[in-house]
Amino acid sequence: MQWALVKGRVTSTVKHESLDGQKLLICQFLGNERQPVGDPVLALDKLGAGQGDIVMITSDGKGLRELLQHNTSPARWWTLGIVDE
Amino acid sequence: MQWALVKGRVTSTVKHESLDGQKLLICQFLGNERQPVGDPVLALDKLGAGQGDIVMITSDGKGLRELLQHNTSPARWWTLGIVDE
Amino acid sequence: MQWALVKGRVTSTVKHESLDGQKLLICQFLGNERQPVGDPVLALDKLGAGQGDIVMITSDGKGLRELLQHNTSPARWWTLGIVDE
Amino acid sequence: MQWALVKGRVTSTVKHESLDGQKLLICQFLGNERQPVGDPVLALDKLGAGQGDIVMITSDGKGLRELLQHNTSPARWWTLGIVDE
Amino acid sequence: MQWALVKGRVTSTVKHESLDGQKLLICQFLGNERQPVGDPVLALDKLGAGQGDIVMITSDGKGLRELLQHNTSPARWWTLGIVDE
Repeated sequence: MQWALVKGRVTSTVKHESLDGQKLLICQFLGNERQPVGDPVLALDKLGAGQGDIVMITSDGKGLRELLQHNTSPARWWTLGIVDE
Repeated sequence: MQWALVKGRVTSTVKHESLDGQKLLICQFLGNERQPVGDPVLALDKLGAGQGDIVMITSDGKGLRELLQHNTSPARWWTLGIVDE
Repeated sequence: MQWALVKGRVTSTVKHESLDGQKLLICQFLGNERQPVGDPVLALDKLGAGQGDIVMITSDGKGLRELLQHNTSPARWWTLGIVDE
Repeated sequence: MQWALVKGRVTSTVKHESLDGQKLLICQFLGNERQPVGDPVLALDKLGAGQGDIVMITSDGKGLRELLQHNTSPARWWTLGIVDE
Repeated sequence: MQWALVKGRVTSTVKHESLDGQKLLICQFLGNERQPVGDPVLALDKLGAGQGDIVMITSDGKGLRELLQHNTSPARWWTLGIVDE
């Protein structure tokens, strides 16, 4: 798990069927002092997070496949929580 | 999942049999502002992406083995979607 | 396994149910000379580690799901030990 | 999958039994322009690659265990193909 | 698999039961020219490696659980071989 700042969304018309109707956020990892670090990932979001939110994200595929009720979803990163201010 | 710019293709004559007939793209990861970041990976593509396209890629092996209908394909990165402009 | 310095905690009201009641530490990786290196991760802690402690952390999901007795917990990093001074 | 330049070999007398008789290459990752990037890994090779070759490598353990017909081989990186010039 | 220089040991009194009686080495990754690169990891050692040795290490959890005869050991990195001079 890492924490990350939501920078925006990405949309895609040509895509894998498991991503239909899913919201994808561009997430920027944060350092100890909440400064941006590293490279962004695209995370699937079911919590209602939006631009400017700080979120906890994970790359666990097993939990995500359960969340989506899709046994072979290839998505990886997703939001686990919205960090309190 | 990350987003990446397609930089070109790579070809290989001597290779693992699971890669026969597969298109492999050289993909450069992108940052928040779509600037190039990090090191490239080789991603298998079934969506018809080409040089200059921005793609979503994942390293999920389980979904890929389903896509290829090859139970033990060792390939990792592949294209999940082409990002809308 | 890596070693890391505990920098603080993070709290989240909106979160995945598997994280209810769990303590999450912000952990900073350490180098050979115990200097901070790389970017922090959020690690679940059951050992009672606190700010300023040096901990051993792992990203093993299987062991964590056993620890939490939660078959599909998506959490990844957690504390395996507190390093002796 | 990444591409990498073969820099040499490594030998080891004291080692895990699954590595007996296996060739291990020191592989340097390459960037978009085939410049060296990042840190090397040790990759098992069955294709006959040698110093100066550009290879495709993967970290897939499942495929490797099949290749070696060794159910619990702990090796990770191995060569999938030799890139055409 | 990577190669790494053994920099020392780490001890921990408060720890996960699967680590009882195990030796943990601080391992520094090495580059092509055997120069130190990246950040250290803690690797479990059964080969008798000591400070100053160059070792091959892997992050394979399945093989390690077999080695330790512990089905849910959360440890990750361990030594596969000692590199010949």
